[in-house]
Amino acid sequence: MNIVLPLIEDLQDAALAQALQRRIDQKTKPLGSLGRLERLALRLGLILGSESPRLAQPQLLVCAADHGLAARGVSAFPSEVTWQMVENFLAGGAAVSVLARPHRQALSVVDCGVKHDFVAPGSPDGTRPGLLVRKVAPGTADCLEAAAMSAEQCALAIAQGQALVRGLPGNCVLLGEMGIGNTSAASMLMARLLGRDIAHCTGAGTGLAAEALERKTAILRAVLQRHAQAQAPLQALAAFGGFEIATLVGVVLQAASERRVLVVDGFITTAAVLVAQALAPHVAQRCVFAHRSGERGHAVMLDHLQAEPLLDMGLRLGEGSGAALAWPLLQSACLLLEQMASFASAGVSERAP
Amino acid sequence: MNIVLPLIEDLQDAALAQALQRRIDQKTKPLGSLGRLERLALRLGLILGSESPRLAQPQLLVCAADHGLAARGVSAFPSEVTWQMVENFLAGGAAVSVLARPHRQALSVVDCGVKHDFVAPGSPDGTRPGLLVRKVAPGTADCLEAAAMSAEQCALAIAQGQALVRGLPGNCVLLGEMGIGNTSAASMLMARLLGRDIAHCTGAGTGLAAEALERKTAILRAVLQRHAQAQAPLQALAAFGGFEIATLVGVVLQAASERRVLVVDGFITTAAVLVAQALAPHVAQRCVFAHRSGERGHAVMLDHLQAEPLLDMGLRLGEGSGAALAWPLLQSACLLLEQMASFASAGVSERAP
Repeated sequence: MNIVLPLIEDLQDAALAQALQRRIDQKTKPLGSLGRLERLALRLGLILGSESPRLAQPQLLVCAADHGLAARGVSAFPSEVTWQMVENFLAGGAAVSVLARPHRQALSVVDCGVKHDFVAPGSPDGTRPGLLVRKVAPGTADCLEAAAMSAEQCALAIAQGQALVRGLPGNCVLLGEMGIGNTSAASMLMARLLGRDIAHCTGAGTGLAAEALERKTAILRAVLQRHAQAQAPLQALAAFGGFEIATLVGVVLQAASERRVLVVDGFITTAAVLVAQALAPHVAQRCVFAHRSGERGHAVMLDHLQAEPLLDMGLRLGEGSGAALAWPLLQSACLLLEQMASFASAGVSERAP
Repeated sequence: MNIVLPLIEDLQDAALAQALQRRIDQKTKPLGSLGRLERLALRLGLILGSESPRLAQPQLLVCAADHGLAARGVSAFPSEVTWQMVENFLAGGAAVSVLARPHRQALSVVDCGVKHDFVAPGSPDGTRPGLLVRKVAPGTADCLEAAAMSAEQCALAIAQGQALVRGLPGNCVLLGEMGIGNTSAASMLMARLLGRDIAHCTGAGTGLAAEALERKTAILRAVLQRHAQAQAPLQALAAFGGFEIATLVGVVLQAASERRVLVVDGFITTAAVLVAQALAPHVAQRCVFAHRSGERGHAVMLDHLQAEPLLDMGLRLGEGSGAALAWPLLQSACLLLEQMASFASAGVSERAP
């Protein structure tokens, strides 16, 4: 497959890491007492290449698409919920809309392949506020019968994701997604890329009961068998991925190459990071993992990426809701680096020797 | 001991709880998919008595005092750090100052008994911006030799905490504290009130090494033996508590009686809640526990209170830093209740039957 892989360098910068750690350790607090927030500050400093990193103009991209496999009943919700939820995002009534608003995250919905036209044909300029149309096709094919998408479609989705980021202001991107059936795609990508049995990668998604979950697992197992040859990350992505996931892979690659901070949400966006990381091994250095999802499999993905998620609140909604919710923690980490006094500057005695 | 215990009613309101749960379940998201955030929304609704609770004018009280026991080397830091950190709070350079600022939490430092005069004698009006002087005495007595405070001092501190809250605007109070040696006081209160061995209640505090921790534990064991008669909560509080903890007990009792939301920080403020809860069993209903501290013993306290802390980031700084950090999660929970669309209002299909 023909994709242009941008250069994503190793962020190891021992001098900067040391300077950041020293800065953190000189703040007026017992050593290490801000726990994971200190490691977050260190990471943000390393990504943005600064001892006093500043987050600017956060961009939240909710990539949406439909899945041919959804017709087989792998989700508790019908396919039309994808476009209905896109309308809900645009109207500002979805969870991610509500969570992003107070923190001034610019939310854009990307139609990567929803089975619905959001812009009426013949409308004056073909656009709607908050919506970016990057539609590869109106939904993937049923991957139990054929590849979800062609290699060309997969490459197009990735290229569109890359182009999207190039046009964005700011230095951080929050990842979101919507697509009925996309926990199935993410589970299969996880199973194939991490070499795990599909049963350990499949969860209840939007809320399947035990019997339906068993059916879902059996279907996914059959899909994986059908595409046994699709072993390479991009082959797997084309065989049983989704247009929103492929677009997110492009978003992740481009943002990583530009040293933007990537705020990863839950199970599906982490699957996109898995694919990107398989293509470019330093991608995960640029990622902040917002939370550990309630969806089975996410914890294993996070372990594989050596990720330390910020929140663990049993969220399993997707959309980017966890990323939006965790955002103030990133802001807090930067503010602590920038604004906290040091023992010397505040005239506070250090610990007894 | 003579304290005026305000009426703190059982918040059980089955009709409101049901209305809130229905409201949450009708939002455009899979059932339960916002995890702990949904339970937080429910709790805030129950405390504030509304299906659409609004948090108003959050007040962060950092109660500070010194501890006679600190002279025995139970902390890694010298006692003078208490007043130095109060100056740091007032100058806006401490962690809690930085974390509270962007969310417009009104931060007040309460001098409950610091061994230092913050207002120069003869200063024009005897006040400093951001500082409330409610000093019981300049530090407690060494509780290995005598009671940390008299019954009258304990009652005064509690009464001052109650009076403080009566004068505060808004409907929520965030709890913070500062006092070199106060993890010792909190550990002993925990041991006595929960009937646990002191070894399971004693942690590294601001950063003791293993040997120093052993010494600290031995000292605390001796203090507990010396005050073996101090079994009732207020007796224990007077025997080996602190003025900041006693003031916080008053703050908690009063805020609970007024149905304000109490945002509890870490180990020391939770110890104050333990005492208040022992006096009035419905106190904990009004509490939101911001985080699980890295300080040993906090997890057991939280279990005892059946608390579900929001964050688990290994914080062990105190000051109210965890409460300030978690605050946006409370705001998010309220906004979701208020602003998220329902399936009906957004025209989104519900799950297949």
